[in-house]
Amino acid sequence: MVTKEEALKAHMESKGKVESSPKVRLANGDDLAKYYTPGVAYVCQEINADKSKAYDYTNKGNTIAIISDGTRILGLGNIGPEAGLPVMESKALLFKKLSGIDAMPLCLNTTDENEIVNFVKNISPSIAGINIEDIESPKCFSITERLSNELQIPILHDDQHGTALVAIAGVMNSLKIAGKNLKASKIVVNGAGAAGLGISRMFGYMKMENVYVLDSNGLIYKDRQEHMNKYKDEIARITNSANKGGTLSDIIENADVLIGASKANAFSKEIISKMNEKPIVFALANPDPEISYAEALEAGAFIAATGRSDAPNQVNNMMSFPAVMRGLLDSGATRIDYSMLYNGAKALARSVGKRLARNHILPSISDGKELSKAISDVAIAIADTAIKSHNARSDVSADAIKSNLASRARLYKRMEKLIL
Amino acid sequence: MVTKEEALKAHMESKGKVESSPKVRLANGDDLAKYYTPGVAYVCQEINADKSKAYDYTNKGNTIAIISDGTRILGLGNIGPEAGLPVMESKALLFKKLSGIDAMPLCLNTTDENEIVNFVKNISPSIAGINIEDIESPKCFSITERLSNELQIPILHDDQHGTALVAIAGVMNSLKIAGKNLKASKIVVNGAGAAGLGISRMFGYMKMENVYVLDSNGLIYKDRQEHMNKYKDEIARITNSANKGGTLSDIIENADVLIGASKANAFSKEIISKMNEKPIVFALANPDPEISYAEALEAGAFIAATGRSDAPNQVNNMMSFPAVMRGLLDSGATRIDYSMLYNGAKALARSVGKRLARNHILPSISDGKELSKAISDVAIAIADTAIKSHNARSDVSADAIKSNLASRARLYKRMEKLIL
Repeated sequence: MVTKEEALKAHMESKGKVESSPKVRLANGDDLAKYYTPGVAYVCQEINADKSKAYDYTNKGNTIAIISDGTRILGLGNIGPEAGLPVMESKALLFKKLSGIDAMPLCLNTTDENEIVNFVKNISPSIAGINIEDIESPKCFSITERLSNELQIPILHDDQHGTALVAIAGVMNSLKIAGKNLKASKIVVNGAGAAGLGISRMFGYMKMENVYVLDSNGLIYKDRQEHMNKYKDEIARITNSANKGGTLSDIIENADVLIGASKANAFSKEIISKMNEKPIVFALANPDPEISYAEALEAGAFIAATGRSDAPNQVNNMMSFPAVMRGLLDSGATRIDYSMLYNGAKALARSVGKRLARNHILPSISDGKELSKAISDVAIAIADTAIKSHNARSDVSADAIKSNLASRARLYKRMEKLIL
Repeated sequence: MVTKEEALKAHMESKGKVESSPKVRLANGDDLAKYYTPGVAYVCQEINADKSKAYDYTNKGNTIAIISDGTRILGLGNIGPEAGLPVMESKALLFKKLSGIDAMPLCLNTTDENEIVNFVKNISPSIAGINIEDIESPKCFSITERLSNELQIPILHDDQHGTALVAIAGVMNSLKIAGKNLKASKIVVNGAGAAGLGISRMFGYMKMENVYVLDSNGLIYKDRQEHMNKYKDEIARITNSANKGGTLSDIIENADVLIGASKANAFSKEIISKMNEKPIVFALANPDPEISYAEALEAGAFIAATGRSDAPNQVNNMMSFPAVMRGLLDSGATRIDYSMLYNGAKALARSVGKRLARNHILPSISDGKELSKAISDVAIAIADTAIKSHNARSDVSADAIKSNLASRARLYKRMEKLIL
């Protein structure tokens, strides 16, 4: 495990994790005339006549902004924008490494919803997509919703969309191994934050009929009066059709799947022991899960999964956010929806192929080949769905997405060699 | 000269001019643990305890934003944010190439002053400096002023600060060659936009007593009633102590220096013929100057200069903006002022050294060695002044600035080799 000293030293030495680099050479006066004045004026005029041409003549089409306000950084809470920067830089690095996307890591000097929405609207001409990151809920949902309605570029809320895609892919594969039918399964989701809402919405899109979601006040149901908001109202509409109240202990009886998106140690062995045969337990709180992988198995879990890299079945957004954004950018998608995410989840589940096993329900992020295949498969599924639902500006082919990813990966390897 | 087709083709092929690249390697799970979760959380906590440490642990200290609203792009006017992007990308490329600075090219979806100011305040935790670029005047001045007062990072207004630095360096060297005394010279500045105000402010700082500034309505003077604003009031206070009205033709008699920061063809040969002996003519409107280099000489100019690369004595901000920002970042300067710019101009003038001549008043941007020496000299002067005026957070040495520039230039050369 990495120590505090190692992490600080590494960050101090490099002073960050991403920088900018040239895409063209300025070797002489002709280059300057072509790429700066006077030549660049022709390019400006061309875009002035048709602003969509910014995608052809600038890096806009491959550029996104990662936007946080520092209010919910990892499990650390509201630590402010400067302290959130290292995480946004890590995400920017992963976007570039895994899918060749240029991401600007931006932590804002405001926690006001209207200011954040305005900021993103104002930056939008310069970018092709947004990743909303580590903003407290429910503000993160309304920001994502408002921006999706107002802008013609996709707004990815990784904590919601990315987590839902990977978790559902993992659940689908786990049920397949257990020989259970997805639609017939009883599923309990503990947690109604960004991940909990995303997972609930995905199940809602899938028309699942036996799903129950809890927050820290117990089951969410239509008639519940306290601690509700419009997002919990939505969860109540799409889950728990029986309109039941109660605790995790009440609802867990005979559940086939338990998904934790809550906090450390929220699941006891006793809870798991009450589940149906071949229980599937996803404990996604990170870095400290609701129950450890080993304890879940000891308690009788048929399949367990966590967010940690030191146990099998790591549920990690690295399989989703770079892939989803690549698919969105390559298809010129104007928005993101759960039909795309569902098809992305199915593609991710399929990409495990013959290696599917109780201790290998998802691609391994430490296996470069498996990870890059997964990202390519998911990106293609996202783009394909965008095109079929007429949300895309380009009918990019699967081969074009693959070759784009491959050439960007080759360039990245050469960039990595420059690091001393 | 570059053709429209060449410029468009070049930009289309590369789809822009800057991208992002990794500063650290993610080769294995240990790297991920160090640079992403869980290791990055230690870094976040360290910055949470002292937010100035973002300069140590992230790329913030070398990152700036180039901010435009698309209202005054080159000489093209208000062509909107998307159409302004190619210019901001060119500037970002030059910042990286010439001084190793990572610049985010941002064109905003608003032309409202308050919105622009808010945007910059909100992005400020993620960056170490701002370059205000191609925003219409007088809005650009009030934006720069408000941000300088409200933020603790330097706000460079290149069209004002950068141009003033280079122009004044050129004027100092020209007067030296002509054997004239700077303070005793009569100087006429035609144009009261960003460059005109910057040059006026620099002469004001230098306590020059014989300076006259004109806008399109003639001489600016204290008692003038029409077409004034607070910036022209300021020009009236620091120039034209005789409070004279009139035209360029009226005031040009016996002038030693004529600086144009106005528009194409604003200077006739007749105007130049009225100047004092050994007249010095700077025609900085770009790409089409107030009078061409050749015509200025024909009209009797002892020294002529323009913004163009196809004639001697190019007055080009490439000698200033990367250097000024490098000096500001390396010293951790919290603001920029005219004492820094004046010392920067003196350093730039000196850096020409023994090559000083009537057709070589400034370093040549096509001579890589001369240009990089100039940038280093200016950066050192800026940092030194910031330190001496107690506006700096670090007492960086000249040697440290030089070696920073040298190592960044080496990395840039290796980055350039990756371009196919």
